[in-house]
Amino acid sequence: MVTRHIFFPMRRNCCLIVNRYPGGLILGGVSVGELEFKREFDLLFNPRSIAVVGASNVPGKWGFIIPVNVLGGGFRGRILMVNPREKAVLGFPAFGSLKDIDEPVDLVFVTIPAAGVAGVIEDAAARGVKNVVVISSNFSETGAEGVALERHLADIANGAGITIVGPNTMGIFSASSSLCALGSPITPLRGGVGFISQSGNLGVQLLMWGRKRGVGFSRFVGSGNAANTDMADYLTYLGEDPDTRVIALYLEGLRDGRRFLETAKMITPTKPIVVLKGGRSEMGSRAARSHSGAMAGQLELFEGMFEQAGIVEAEHSEEFIDIVAAFDALPKAVGNRVAIMTMGGGWGVVAVDACEREGLNLASLPSSVIEELDQVLPEFWSRGNPVDLVGNLRRSSHFKTIDALIACDEVDILIVMGALLGKEFFIDSIFHGAVKPFFSMLRHHARLVPSFVFSQEMALLRALFKRGRSGGEKGKGDGRKALGSSGINPVEAWLWTDTALVRRLHKLVKSTGKPIITVAMDERETSAAARLQSQGIFSAPTPERAVRAAARIAGYGIFAGKSRKPS
Amino acid sequence: MVTRHIFFPMRRNCCLIVNRYPGGLILGGVSVGELEFKREFDLLFNPRSIAVVGASNVPGKWGFIIPVNVLGGGFRGRILMVNPREKAVLGFPAFGSLKDIDEPVDLVFVTIPAAGVAGVIEDAAARGVKNVVVISSNFSETGAEGVALERHLADIANGAGITIVGPNTMGIFSASSSLCALGSPITPLRGGVGFISQSGNLGVQLLMWGRKRGVGFSRFVGSGNAANTDMADYLTYLGEDPDTRVIALYLEGLRDGRRFLETAKMITPTKPIVVLKGGRSEMGSRAARSHSGAMAGQLELFEGMFEQAGIVEAEHSEEFIDIVAAFDALPKAVGNRVAIMTMGGGWGVVAVDACEREGLNLASLPSSVIEELDQVLPEFWSRGNPVDLVGNLRRSSHFKTIDALIACDEVDILIVMGALLGKEFFIDSIFHGAVKPFFSMLRHHARLVPSFVFSQEMALLRALFKRGRSGGEKGKGDGRKALGSSGINPVEAWLWTDTALVRRLHKLVKSTGKPIITVAMDERETSAAARLQSQGIFSAPTPERAVRAAARIAGYGIFAGKSRKPS
Repeated sequence: MVTRHIFFPMRRNCCLIVNRYPGGLILGGVSVGELEFKREFDLLFNPRSIAVVGASNVPGKWGFIIPVNVLGGGFRGRILMVNPREKAVLGFPAFGSLKDIDEPVDLVFVTIPAAGVAGVIEDAAARGVKNVVVISSNFSETGAEGVALERHLADIANGAGITIVGPNTMGIFSASSSLCALGSPITPLRGGVGFISQSGNLGVQLLMWGRKRGVGFSRFVGSGNAANTDMADYLTYLGEDPDTRVIALYLEGLRDGRRFLETAKMITPTKPIVVLKGGRSEMGSRAARSHSGAMAGQLELFEGMFEQAGIVEAEHSEEFIDIVAAFDALPKAVGNRVAIMTMGGGWGVVAVDACEREGLNLASLPSSVIEELDQVLPEFWSRGNPVDLVGNLRRSSHFKTIDALIACDEVDILIVMGALLGKEFFIDSIFHGAVKPFFSMLRHHARLVPSFVFSQEMALLRALFKRGRSGGEKGKGDGRKALGSSGINPVEAWLWTDTALVRRLHKLVKSTGKPIITVAMDERETSAAARLQSQGIFSAPTPERAVRAAARIAGYGIFAGKSRKPS
Repeated sequence: MVTRHIFFPMRRNCCLIVNRYPGGLILGGVSVGELEFKREFDLLFNPRSIAVVGASNVPGKWGFIIPVNVLGGGFRGRILMVNPREKAVLGFPAFGSLKDIDEPVDLVFVTIPAAGVAGVIEDAAARGVKNVVVISSNFSETGAEGVALERHLADIANGAGITIVGPNTMGIFSASSSLCALGSPITPLRGGVGFISQSGNLGVQLLMWGRKRGVGFSRFVGSGNAANTDMADYLTYLGEDPDTRVIALYLEGLRDGRRFLETAKMITPTKPIVVLKGGRSEMGSRAARSHSGAMAGQLELFEGMFEQAGIVEAEHSEEFIDIVAAFDALPKAVGNRVAIMTMGGGWGVVAVDACEREGLNLASLPSSVIEELDQVLPEFWSRGNPVDLVGNLRRSSHFKTIDALIACDEVDILIVMGALLGKEFFIDSIFHGAVKPFFSMLRHHARLVPSFVFSQEMALLRALFKRGRSGGEKGKGDGRKALGSSGINPVEAWLWTDTALVRRLHKLVKSTGKPIITVAMDERETSAAARLQSQGIFSAPTPERAVRAAARIAGYGIFAGKSRKPS
């Protein structure tokens, strides 16, 4: 158990109250008078120049890491270094203080020890700076003294209309200005996700996962101790930000629940908000208080609020990035009827189990679609949803199946399993099919090698000249596959590439406007998955995660459809 | 909905009955008389010679894939090819039929079309072969005709005491004989997991995941349509198999529930059984019947059975491989009190939430441990569990924290987060810290480059000659880290490598016998994770999955502890 942990750095006149509304429980708070100044977030995300107070030449220091990452991220504005003990930092001339800088400063970063930060805020105020990112720690997260220090910062900032990001933040990222001011060696992909995180480590890790999955970000803010901000401040900006299509929040606590709810309600009818709630449990809520100092807990209040506002909640971190990726890639779903195409019965079973668990309906395929599929699939296909291809290896018939399912009016979402192979599949196949057996034979049956080579060459020649035109028998090992008893078919061979699949799926998403989710179960398929993400198709690492993401986008799609209708 | 799907290829005199026992509901079945012959599974998993009936030179055919994978897998026994239309297959002389082979045959694989399989079984029976793996499909999975055909196979086999693996199977793997007879280009890692799967595709995928995660297998069987076997047959063998430490099952249905239960009960006190149950839902159960023809469903019966027998159930496929990996790597847990070390508060919160969800207890750290940690951690550490290192970057103090936590009597399981970095972390850091900023500067501030190079060299020289001996102030950016204001410390630099961490953790597992779970959240940490697996440490990709696996091993540990005590 946590033995000594709790400080409540709540704003002075802010207290937590609970109101019962007809629509359910919501969390409300007295709004904080002196925080009500106009935020100038445009200058935070699109500064023409930044100053780093505490800039350093010493690797490992925050004053080194932040400007190095800003340089590495390709920021095109001016970078101004402030360090009274150096003549130059990272090659840039160093200024003694903010006051000594003789050109405009839009945004200030602070990395010096806590005691000196208040002075920097004062200097920033004197220059009319509107945003200060305080990387420095040792504020309210450390005890009563730190709380007082942080309150002092907030008072100065509030008086001058300055927004403090942090203190104790991992930094910010903004795609529009290529500003990558993060405390970790990562450049996020650019894209449509606006992400505010009440944990820096967790936030940066999710940016990395995004990079791997092909999910790009418009903005990122690690809100740190949030000296004079609340989640709703950032939310308001992201709601109106044309660069942000999806909003992602890691949320431990809120100062003003009602404002958050009202803000979210304005946004969700047109822009999805996905939240990962830390401190859901009693124990976790205690840990959250000791971490960010925020009032976590009151799970029912939060859940009610999320439901009222149509906010999509992820249960854990992997689901969070899955759902964010799904919203980022996919068009809106209009219902929850799912069609599933599978190469193997077992995965089909597992996916259907997941559908029932997540409250999705299996689309009922009309007889016209069944008859259409009868034409392209082996006699003993499942003749229903999920469509089990029963080992059929004719790629063109997979494509026709996908066409038929996505065109069907009964289908809102299509899940395609087992179709992505990844470049390495072919390399692996050749390695396993030719190289390894050859060497294995060399080791044990050396005298058979000439015969091996000869029989393989004969078989290959036969395959090349026996360009299959016969339909072939139905069933496993069927007709016109790329390599088989009926010869090599170059069209089939091309269709088996991931590129052919990605192109076809992209075309279908464009023409039907329906979400298609693929399953790429192997690491070697990751590159294809990231490519799909940019083509408007979400790719999940397992069938269960595909289904779970489908359920969340279906739920949101139905909510958004309702809220857009005039009531 | 599945519109036409169901065939019940149940054995003749086998019917499903339900008994109510004092201990809970169990599923029972009349045992099937004519199946009760002695299984000779030693010849299945350790054959001195195999014959492939239907062996082919044509890439893409099962008769090509299977022997090629056997060769690629390094099988050291004799491989005999049977194909009446070829003189040689893959360089080996081809025999006209099984009867023509003039040397002993321990195991037969069949890849020819369904109609001819019965004849092969008869030939095998005449030779006294005890196991036949039927890769061929188009049996009970396709309809009434196929059911009759499969029944005919089973009758011949039962009469001759032959076990049929399949029909419609993806093949088998056995580490002890390096027999990799799979329908997919993969060689599983060798290890202690015995895995029986009622789905071939799912099974092979899990072997691949295992390869990536460093999880090795002793045996794998895709049981296919299971013409004359039931899960309990394989289970009996794996229970007694000294090469198998953990048993993994993908299970859709059972013919004889009572026998399965009784067999499992004999095994679980000493060997864990992990199951992924397909067809849990109403819809999924229908899909399962159309897939493997097995009687799935009756979820409550299965759940009751798993609980009674101490079988660990995974909810989805990723959790399945996680739990199998955890059992494979870790020593037994004796309780459910968990200590968590975290580098970032947010991940700590998320992990604690997961602990509460999964029913784990956070270990309460005694004051002696708190005082020990006070000596090595910054003043404002969380002073409780989870142990939040609050950004402390002194690696030696991380190691001391790990030592103190694992030695504590209140701790049954230790979860270490944020300590694995991966080789690429350092490469990334250099790239972000030196290469990218340099080129960025070249592009925009070319005249500053000489100054940049000079200031960096000066800083590096200063760091090298200022070998830090001062303790440094407590808190973020603390004293003796590898690179920092107090100079370069070579011991610290070495400790920061994954190799140092792996060695330390391995030593602790050996000396304490307690399970340690790490979290490697990044793909680039995968190689370290696989290395840990072989060193007795389980590494999960997220905190939530670490906690979930911890809960399952704790639950099993407590069960096994109870069942070994005399009652």
